[in-house]
Amino acid sequence: MTAAERGTVYLVGAGPGDPELLTLKAVRLLATADVVLHDDLVPVAVLAHAERALAINVGKRCGRKNISQEQIDAMMVDYARRGMAVVRLKSGDPLVFGRAGEEMDALRRAGVPFEVVPGITAAFAAAAAVRRPLTDRRNASSISFSSGHHAPGSTLEPASLAGATHAIYMPGRDLRATAAQLRSEGLPADLPCVIVSRAAQPDQEILRTTLARLDHVTPGPAPSILLVGEALRETDAAETLEIVAGLRSEALEMRTDKR
Amino acid sequence: MTAAERGTVYLVGAGPGDPELLTLKAVRLLATADVVLHDDLVPVAVLAHAERALAINVGKRCGRKNISQEQIDAMMVDYARRGMAVVRLKSGDPLVFGRAGEEMDALRRAGVPFEVVPGITAAFAAAAAVRRPLTDRRNASSISFSSGHHAPGSTLEPASLAGATHAIYMPGRDLRATAAQLRSEGLPADLPCVIVSRAAQPDQEILRTTLARLDHVTPGPAPSILLVGEALRETDAAETLEIVAGLRSEALEMRTDKR
Repeated sequence: MTAAERGTVYLVGAGPGDPELLTLKAVRLLATADVVLHDDLVPVAVLAHAERALAINVGKRCGRKNISQEQIDAMMVDYARRGMAVVRLKSGDPLVFGRAGEEMDALRRAGVPFEVVPGITAAFAAAAAVRRPLTDRRNASSISFSSGHHAPGSTLEPASLAGATHAIYMPGRDLRATAAQLRSEGLPADLPCVIVSRAAQPDQEILRTTLARLDHVTPGPAPSILLVGEALRETDAAETLEIVAGLRSEALEMRTDKR
Repeated sequence: MTAAERGTVYLVGAGPGDPELLTLKAVRLLATADVVLHDDLVPVAVLAHAERALAINVGKRCGRKNISQEQIDAMMVDYARRGMAVVRLKSGDPLVFGRAGEEMDALRRAGVPFEVVPGITAAFAAAAAVRRPLTDRRNASSISFSSGHHAPGSTLEPASLAGATHAIYMPGRDLRATAAQLRSEGLPADLPCVIVSRAAQPDQEILRTTLARLDHVTPGPAPSILLVGEALRETDAAETLEIVAGLRSEALEMRTDKR
């Protein structure tokens, strides 16, 4: 097994949470890294692969500590310059909603060699959990990924929403603004919506509703993701029961929104 | 290691081609499956994990054979009913541009238990190869995934293209229509475009250009993906050289479009 290179930073996707959804490459790099700088949302079962590394939680939510982006950048550069093999471990895919652009710019400025290792993003884990396609030649020719987080300039994609599946990351606990925006774009009231909280983790929760009812529901614990689109419509009335009783029964708690 | 269940179909993402980008779960299911029904684009190095399985290429391009979607559906159902553990192995993620919706409907109709295992999609592998983010709070708040394949009803997402990164799957060899559409939406001529052919495979090719020049370039061999957006702009003039000389040098051939 080729070890992680000393003096190099690897921006690695940790996937959605299930340690079995790590890539072989992520496992290899975690197992041979000297330092792992990880997000707060990365579960212990994933970090368990980093047997010999110093693991540092640089997440934005870690208790009262508040590590700035500049501090994270400086830590990556500093550990690499000290000759360590550094894994910067990010939930999901490292290049999706994760400030990797800023981190890579910092590494370029410092002349530190780095590599990016993709990971499974939450939208794919959520769609797999509900066993619905994200595209379908019958009703969904494209996918949009947006963030419902209240960052400046972050808005839902306006217009041309029909005929697509929408994955909205970090929708927050209050879905009223998101629901209002989607409705104002002319999307139909009966459009299926699925909220998956803690996708691919043992305490995963799935909440099914429609756009008309979206402002009445409250997502489960973070991280959660909202999927919206015709491709998510259940074709089988027994589907909910089937999922609960079926393959993932031990890992799944389902709450169904009553109309 | 828990074996794949007999009588069950697993729709598994094979990732973009690099066998190290398989998930641990995909490897486990491949290693314990009885039958693997795979797309034409799945490389031999990935199939090598299916040591004990009968591997059947059901791809649309496999020589003169032309296996219909109905035949693939029937094969999955038939093998599962005969008590075999079946892996339906799809390039990238199984729920993205892969007719998984139709295959899952067929499995539901037949009452065959099935599970979906996500995989790394080509857009993530391509962005990792060029070491550029897909979202960036400075210039790209969302991502769109669309298909440039000439399927009925498949069009690029019109409108609201600025401030997003666009991943266009199967753009084809002739990019003139795609370039014209993007230009007609008002996107700027100097917008960065990256075409990655055979992402994450040993013969990967990266082609960098701008929207103004997109209709003059010809992608490398399939599968290829086109990424368009401000987040892809190179911040460092030495970047091209750095990528060629750097971490992935053995795996990378780069062609640069001269302006």
